[in-house]
Amino acid sequence: MPEFLSLVPPEEALERLLGALSQADIPRRLERIPTDSALGRVLAEDVVSPEKLPPFRRSTVDGFAVRARDTFGASASLPAYLKVVGEVPMGVVAPMSLEEGQVALVHTGGMLPEGSDAVVMLEDTQRPKPDEIEVLKAVAAAENVLRSGEDLDEGDLALKAGRRLRAQDLGGLAALGVTEVPVAVRPQVALLATGDEVVPPTAGLSAGQIRDVNSTTLAATVTAAGGVPQPGGIIPDEYEELLDAAHRALNESDAVVITAGSSVSARDRTADVLDELGDPGVLVHGVSIKPGKPTILAVCEGKLAMGLPGNPVSALVVAGIFLSPALRFLLGERGADLQPELGARLAVNLPSRTGREDYVPVRLEASPEGWIAHPVYGRSNLIFTLVRADGLVKIPPATTGLAAGAEVRVRLFG
Amino acid sequence: MPEFLSLVPPEEALERLLGALSQADIPRRLERIPTDSALGRVLAEDVVSPEKLPPFRRSTVDGFAVRARDTFGASASLPAYLKVVGEVPMGVVAPMSLEEGQVALVHTGGMLPEGSDAVVMLEDTQRPKPDEIEVLKAVAAAENVLRSGEDLDEGDLALKAGRRLRAQDLGGLAALGVTEVPVAVRPQVALLATGDEVVPPTAGLSAGQIRDVNSTTLAATVTAAGGVPQPGGIIPDEYEELLDAAHRALNESDAVVITAGSSVSARDRTADVLDELGDPGVLVHGVSIKPGKPTILAVCEGKLAMGLPGNPVSALVVAGIFLSPALRFLLGERGADLQPELGARLAVNLPSRTGREDYVPVRLEASPEGWIAHPVYGRSNLIFTLVRADGLVKIPPATTGLAAGAEVRVRLFG
Repeated sequence: MPEFLSLVPPEEALERLLGALSQADIPRRLERIPTDSALGRVLAEDVVSPEKLPPFRRSTVDGFAVRARDTFGASASLPAYLKVVGEVPMGVVAPMSLEEGQVALVHTGGMLPEGSDAVVMLEDTQRPKPDEIEVLKAVAAAENVLRSGEDLDEGDLALKAGRRLRAQDLGGLAALGVTEVPVAVRPQVALLATGDEVVPPTAGLSAGQIRDVNSTTLAATVTAAGGVPQPGGIIPDEYEELLDAAHRALNESDAVVITAGSSVSARDRTADVLDELGDPGVLVHGVSIKPGKPTILAVCEGKLAMGLPGNPVSALVVAGIFLSPALRFLLGERGADLQPELGARLAVNLPSRTGREDYVPVRLEASPEGWIAHPVYGRSNLIFTLVRADGLVKIPPATTGLAAGAEVRVRLFG
Repeated sequence: MPEFLSLVPPEEALERLLGALSQADIPRRLERIPTDSALGRVLAEDVVSPEKLPPFRRSTVDGFAVRARDTFGASASLPAYLKVVGEVPMGVVAPMSLEEGQVALVHTGGMLPEGSDAVVMLEDTQRPKPDEIEVLKAVAAAENVLRSGEDLDEGDLALKAGRRLRAQDLGGLAALGVTEVPVAVRPQVALLATGDEVVPPTAGLSAGQIRDVNSTTLAATVTAAGGVPQPGGIIPDEYEELLDAAHRALNESDAVVITAGSSVSARDRTADVLDELGDPGVLVHGVSIKPGKPTILAVCEGKLAMGLPGNPVSALVVAGIFLSPALRFLLGERGADLQPELGARLAVNLPSRTGREDYVPVRLEASPEGWIAHPVYGRSNLIFTLVRADGLVKIPPATTGLAAGAEVRVRLFG
């Protein structure tokens, strides 16, 4: 039973999948959670600034609030002499209003008094008497002043829906007093493993058995992408049992991922099951990629469904290429895909086959000239090849390989 | 009161801090947690493989287990005729032992029978009768076979202490049946804010007040680095109150971070407080970096202590440069520092001052030639400059700036 698949380029495969998910018109669910616990969650609605930030004119330095025109022409040789009328306390309305020739001491972050329009830095002044300063350097209007609303005006878009929230985004919300945010509910992702030789990691091994690796690695991938893994256990390698288990999983979850047994017949079985789960069914069966050729991408009754290769290296690499982006899409995450990477040079030649996108695990070594990428050799059944690697080098389909010394971008593992 | 600091280059500043933390000889605490929940935690002890992985010789393809020498010279024009003696079921000991001229059907992942030493792929055979195959292509000994222990041998180092656990690392542990791992206990990091104008994000603002941003952004930074933030609230801008609060925080936590009020006097107060907290005290006061010049790094009675600038942009940038690495060090994380970045070209000239390391927030825009980095201008008090940015461009101290079109590496925000 040789395996004949009509292979789809990975980029097109992902497009088909995301396209079908768009058309499935899946209702977005959101929940409101405290801003403090929203790191890494995806914002579900635009946040508009309810007020001006900062809410009042603030000094950016320690110095004296002045009327800029009172300092015109001032220099070290010809200082402007101005009268100190007080000090602005922090956290309250500046209690004075400046007339011509008057200044007030103000600290960084303090409010500018009525009548002032600039701040002279402390180091550009002398204070011969408590109530008098010499200004040694002229300031322009607005110098050393944050105007009210300079960071954000009332009604400005503060954060756009679809953003994955980072430290500074939460800080921006805190600045605006937004202590609760609407975020996308995390999708539940059922993970089913198959294979009569496969037993749970907790099991002692009998001869001929191996432990399930994929449920663990895929759970971590799902978590990192923002979903909630639902371990569905190991399903016996029978069509009806797999169909039943997949049906149940899809009813209870937002997505189902089956790691097929690695034999050809087991992979075909998975494709048949996914096709029977609902329309439109299997969109892609076979991708021109290594590892991961027998990948199956499907949408069934408005839910994401995937069949990943059974061997652990392929399953994890493919999950990074298709499962993570699909989950981010389901979460409503939008915006540039900033895939973290590191520039490096190849230590050795990396041959490849044209027409296929290769992902080669590499270990990075520092050198005075920058990072050197050393391929980690090992068959795709060997999970420790990925344990020893720092990231993947992608070899584009239109080349026969990359030469030693070539500059490459290493996609770092999360 | 002008500010005179003896500025330390950032790299040397971090070295001093980590050096003092090493010498403080802080006892490492570990806890044992389920492997399934260890994503992102730091492994606290070496893990040695308790067994061979895989535990038995496995086929990497669907095909026939053979004695390689029985196929020598076989080709499509001159096939070798061999006798099928059975099929290897999955998950049990192969029930047959092969004699000369005999083969057994085996699936991917199945055990090789006694007597066999290679597997012929299904597509390289014909099967004219149920009990006979024609081998169309010779195989060498060990071809299409994973040997027992090929991934990892019994007693091999599986994972080294100090590794931050990724998906594949958890998968490797699952493969070995290691369902519980020793990880470093997360350090508790007390966060104290100061400033009489600062109120909590939950507060309504009176005129002259602003909301605390740093406790939120630093909590997110601490969480991302693997620590547990302990919000300590906003401390009145008085020496004794700050010293008391810092003392209490340091007793109850593993580290304390004070974001100083932004005025010079407030910053000096923080340095004095940190010096009084215990030996060796302040190690660095002032770093040749922008933003973040008035940063204070200290170790007090074997605990990490920092004074960060009060304004939100500086605090967050500096936290990424000093606080995150220090927490990773406390967690025992070791190994290459793979700072994720993206290569880009500058959209405009970026002037800088020599002798100072500049960190400029940039927004990335895709172009047919790759990423273009646009600086996000805005004073360092404006948190939304960082909200609008995707990462930071570092301008090295020995340059007067970078020209438009220059290749830069953008450090992505987490």
